[in-house]
Amino acid sequence: MKASIITIGDEILIGQIVDTNSVSIARHLNSAGIVVRERLSIGDDRRQIIQAVEWALKNYEVTILTGGLGPTKDDITKKTLAELFQCDMRYDQQVAEHVEKMLTARGIEFNDLNRSQAMVPTACTVLFNAHGTAPGMWFERNGHVVVSLPGVPYEMEHLMQDKVMPMLKSHFSLRQIVHRTMITAGLPESMLAKRIEKWENALPPYLKLAYLPNPGAVRLRLSAYEVEGESVAREIDRQFEALRKIIPHNVIGFETASMQELVHGLLTKRHLTLATAESCTGGSIAARFTALPGASAYFRCGVVAYSNDAKVDILGVHADDIAQYGAVSEQVARQMAEGARRVAGADYAIATTGIAGPTGGTAEKPVGTVWIAVATPERTVAQVRQCGTDRGQVIDRASAFAISLLRDCLNGE
Amino acid sequence: MKASIITIGDEILIGQIVDTNSVSIARHLNSAGIVVRERLSIGDDRRQIIQAVEWALKNYEVTILTGGLGPTKDDITKKTLAELFQCDMRYDQQVAEHVEKMLTARGIEFNDLNRSQAMVPTACTVLFNAHGTAPGMWFERNGHVVVSLPGVPYEMEHLMQDKVMPMLKSHFSLRQIVHRTMITAGLPESMLAKRIEKWENALPPYLKLAYLPNPGAVRLRLSAYEVEGESVAREIDRQFEALRKIIPHNVIGFETASMQELVHGLLTKRHLTLATAESCTGGSIAARFTALPGASAYFRCGVVAYSNDAKVDILGVHADDIAQYGAVSEQVARQMAEGARRVAGADYAIATTGIAGPTGGTAEKPVGTVWIAVATPERTVAQVRQCGTDRGQVIDRASAFAISLLRDCLNGE
Repeated sequence: MKASIITIGDEILIGQIVDTNSVSIARHLNSAGIVVRERLSIGDDRRQIIQAVEWALKNYEVTILTGGLGPTKDDITKKTLAELFQCDMRYDQQVAEHVEKMLTARGIEFNDLNRSQAMVPTACTVLFNAHGTAPGMWFERNGHVVVSLPGVPYEMEHLMQDKVMPMLKSHFSLRQIVHRTMITAGLPESMLAKRIEKWENALPPYLKLAYLPNPGAVRLRLSAYEVEGESVAREIDRQFEALRKIIPHNVIGFETASMQELVHGLLTKRHLTLATAESCTGGSIAARFTALPGASAYFRCGVVAYSNDAKVDILGVHADDIAQYGAVSEQVARQMAEGARRVAGADYAIATTGIAGPTGGTAEKPVGTVWIAVATPERTVAQVRQCGTDRGQVIDRASAFAISLLRDCLNGE
Repeated sequence: MKASIITIGDEILIGQIVDTNSVSIARHLNSAGIVVRERLSIGDDRRQIIQAVEWALKNYEVTILTGGLGPTKDDITKKTLAELFQCDMRYDQQVAEHVEKMLTARGIEFNDLNRSQAMVPTACTVLFNAHGTAPGMWFERNGHVVVSLPGVPYEMEHLMQDKVMPMLKSHFSLRQIVHRTMITAGLPESMLAKRIEKWENALPPYLKLAYLPNPGAVRLRLSAYEVEGESVAREIDRQFEALRKIIPHNVIGFETASMQELVHGLLTKRHLTLATAESCTGGSIAARFTALPGASAYFRCGVVAYSNDAKVDILGVHADDIAQYGAVSEQVARQMAEGARRVAGADYAIATTGIAGPTGGTAEKPVGTVWIAVATPERTVAQVRQCGTDRGQVIDRASAFAISLLRDCLNGE
């Protein structure tokens, strides 16, 4: 079963927003065994929408569209689909009542623009949107399905989960997609590839290997599309077990878990607690952990100690060490980690202090220089890392390196 | 001048990564007057790559590809492009020396996989990649350009900036694209649309209006494609000035500035300082501000007070108020904001405390309930907001609402 995802909206094409809807839709389809073959973004343009949907209908059994369903003039997806499926529009009483109720609750008058949201193409099955004013729509032609969803992420998400996925599962007889990812560390991509070359060459043809390099880690993903899931999953397990014997010291985890998810799992399982003391990463490390459900079980507190005063007053860093070694130094990183651990009464603490840029770099400490430290019940470990030149990149990489150092400490490395 | 962006990699199609490269490339092209008509993501698949590039070459003057240039077997973009442009491969001595130098500096041996990175199609102009091992490639056919770049974001970014954009500007005679965005608050999309209907209908036909609803704000974007930039920019200014007279109390800013960028501007200009005290948003608010260059001028410190102890010990929240009213309450939000302001010695402080979910909700305080507070030199303001049901959504919306409340306070509203 092959699928295509089409997101509609000029804001995607001019780079005003990041298209996260496609990611979420791709995950839903994948997990049900539907292979996403392409993702396309186009403008709010009648000709482009028709061209793209016609192509998708011809090539893929399933097409999911998002966007262009708002009440204003720039949104034209609905009427364009009515044209494409050669049908009229009808007024849907249930949708109208729902929209009026939603708006009234928020103190907004129900005007003719909102009323227009209850107009739907006669050719579609309405997918009732409990969380918004634009309904989803399900069209069929020659057994192929086209679904149109609102672009508001959580409305789209609810409709995918509650309506589209169950309907797809009952409409099609689906096979399975199996992905499994092994996370390795300590070998750069090209050396890793040489080391495992023989194993790679002997993989069965239905298993596809991908290398996904990240700061501090290379992920190896094995994928099999449209297969009998259980036996293939067992084969992947066997292959990874064989691989582990080739690089025993480089395997650090499995699945698509991010580094923080791995650490989250370790802390939760061992009933340990965590605190953070961030300077250049500015709250990113805390935000990565607290985004995970269940973080409150171990995350005690984080301090974003941007100013030197905050480092001294809250974390107890020695002001004379800041004066002597600079805020970006091993001494300060260590004292920040130890201070956070003490103040929070936590088992472990992570600290970062560095130069995120674009200004503030020197010849000795250029932009991207970051000291990271982890304080444990036994000791404090510190490292300096070069994290790139772009502010966003420095924050991301420093966060990743710091969490990775914590993982090493938790594993006694 | 029309363009298409093609990102190659199975990890995009299965939803394993978010495609941020397209966003950045779209911005570069837009700012130079090149209209991005479509963005496509496909797998590491020979047939798909050929089909997509042939389509793009036929329809668009410029096509930018990213991905599939790594040294491992799963990456096939380079050899597929050589096939498409019907040419052989050659060994590029300069690239080889650069790759060897980069690897040696990192203590990595230069093996035959790395050596293969110096093989390039004879039909292309090599775009030297100072920041990585895979060079960019520039192809031409009938005056149309196809550029292939590595998928590693900062390598792609450097090549776009240093090589591709200057080359496109000298290769084509480009016109201009003008976008300007007005940020409004206080009117939901449908009411805003009714209120400005007459103005919208009278817009000159070359100006395209888009509504972009966000939590707490609706953005109105006027765009003109491939025009004489200066006179059109003046016309957009005139139109927005007329619009401001229609909704004088709802215009809160211009451009694609995010709410934190607006606040960042206000704080910087007025030499005011900021602190944060976050519970449910877990560091997200601090991270949003500290991601902006120059944040260190006003951002003093942030406390991610996840545990009740941290709220009491660091921020001075009264333990008996937590016991009486609960951690998610107006009293606690106010004391967190006032505590952060006091501890940091800052002019303003933001606080959030809420239930991010998925667990922890009650009938009285369901998941998504968030108290936000802002402490100013004169007073403390608190509000409760319903921020949705999904953990990520709650964190995002609560952060946006809190920063928006700070903006209101800074503007004396």
